[in-house]
Amino acid sequence: MTVKQLTMPELVAACVESGVPGVGLWREPVRSYGIEATARLVRDAGLSVTTLCRGGFLTAIEPAERARALDDNRAAVDEAATLGSDTLVLVSGGLPAGSKDLRGARERIADALAELGPYAAGRGVRLAVEPLHPMYAADRCVVSTLAQALDLAERFPADQVGVAVDTYHVWWDDTAPAQIARAGASGRIHSFQLADWTTPLPEGVLNGRGQIGDGAVDMREWRGYVEAAGYTGPIEVELFNDGLWVRDGREVLAETVARFVEHAG
Amino acid sequence: MTVKQLTMPELVAACVESGVPGVGLWREPVRSYGIEATARLVRDAGLSVTTLCRGGFLTAIEPAERARALDDNRAAVDEAATLGSDTLVLVSGGLPAGSKDLRGARERIADALAELGPYAAGRGVRLAVEPLHPMYAADRCVVSTLAQALDLAERFPADQVGVAVDTYHVWWDDTAPAQIARAGASGRIHSFQLADWTTPLPEGVLNGRGQIGDGAVDMREWRGYVEAAGYTGPIEVELFNDGLWVRDGREVLAETVARFVEHAG
Repeated sequence: MTVKQLTMPELVAACVESGVPGVGLWREPVRSYGIEATARLVRDAGLSVTTLCRGGFLTAIEPAERARALDDNRAAVDEAATLGSDTLVLVSGGLPAGSKDLRGARERIADALAELGPYAAGRGVRLAVEPLHPMYAADRCVVSTLAQALDLAERFPADQVGVAVDTYHVWWDDTAPAQIARAGASGRIHSFQLADWTTPLPEGVLNGRGQIGDGAVDMREWRGYVEAAGYTGPIEVELFNDGLWVRDGREVLAETVARFVEHAG
Repeated sequence: MTVKQLTMPELVAACVESGVPGVGLWREPVRSYGIEATARLVRDAGLSVTTLCRGGFLTAIEPAERARALDDNRAAVDEAATLGSDTLVLVSGGLPAGSKDLRGARERIADALAELGPYAAGRGVRLAVEPLHPMYAADRCVVSTLAQALDLAERFPADQVGVAVDTYHVWWDDTAPAQIARAGASGRIHSFQLADWTTPLPEGVLNGRGQIGDGAVDMREWRGYVEAAGYTGPIEVELFNDGLWVRDGREVLAETVARFVEHAG
């Protein structure tokens, strides 16, 4: 998503050229290029698919809508398996229209995980519940902290459900380091992502994630927390940024690699 | 601030007309009208000044800047005392330019409170540390949760330092109800403010606070938490909203009173 302006073959070529060994993919571009075709392309280039983003949106109340969401998440699991990725990242979903019941919404996520966890594990895929910054609690993700994500994940085996740690979403939270240790202790850090916090936030607050080093987040500090918790998996850089998307994608990827080395390497 | 388009006399008249018994004031309009003049105007109308907003911005590292901030906060305390308000709300301040050290910034706030708390108590004014929504952690307020605010406040006597509970800032936090109980147990709920959470957020995320009833927050639920914690003080409605500011201020005040009765009364 950091360089979504690149086509799938351009992305894969740019990763290989930049020495990036794995790539996190989003479902929409994968589906556009073709799931099998993407799997082949990435595999032939020697890249791993670190995670597939994203499943989730599991907070609907209406039965038909819930059934559709579960179907879509099973499809996402299948896609991750086809791509050879062991992790599907879940963005849980916001409040249904008119609802003010955060607690109820979080319980419906747990109900959905009970169905999806075994399905995913049966296909070699782990679910990673990603807490999103509290500014998304109403409209995108009622899971706002690592503590809440772990409260959900720990109801299930770690090879079914864990959490995703994204610096953009948790950097402000002084309880997050202890929660990372808690997640690591049960083997539930299923994804680790970097983005920097820059202000002012843009309208809608979706596409203002800062390039590594441009903002308030100490990347080495957070890398230290997950590594101290035993995490040895890939580190993704996931930037939603209108300013980066209008630039040349290869240049953005090269810059991102350089920033990673400088600030998180 | 909800009806900042009104002049001070218009505001006071509109409050009286609407049956609003007290008003939270901001320093800028008070200074424009004159501190003594405002105090007289409000007193003569039989209104109380519920809180003065705001002191704070206590995170500077540079000594001269820190000294200026402390001076300004002492002035704010004096202004609150002159207005007859017992509470000065503090917005703690963000990260200094280039700093990524949230923990250090929070400690500098504690240092400042140690100086300001006794000064305020000596003038019959309590300081209310207001946690702001985590989306302001970098640029406005490194105190993002009630737990953090109480960790700071509890280092001092309750008649010096407590907290402000604003639904806009804490509604997403599943630990906030327990923290409200903690605050109430030591008599530290010094202010309770309502605003609703509406999306999409505007650019800069400052002026998109929703009118009561327009958003995701269950006002009665939160009123219930503070009252169960023993709070019997005023309830303020504090809306920063460009859409409300362009309308007739008297009409907005009347609407706000009606919404309060409907959703929080």
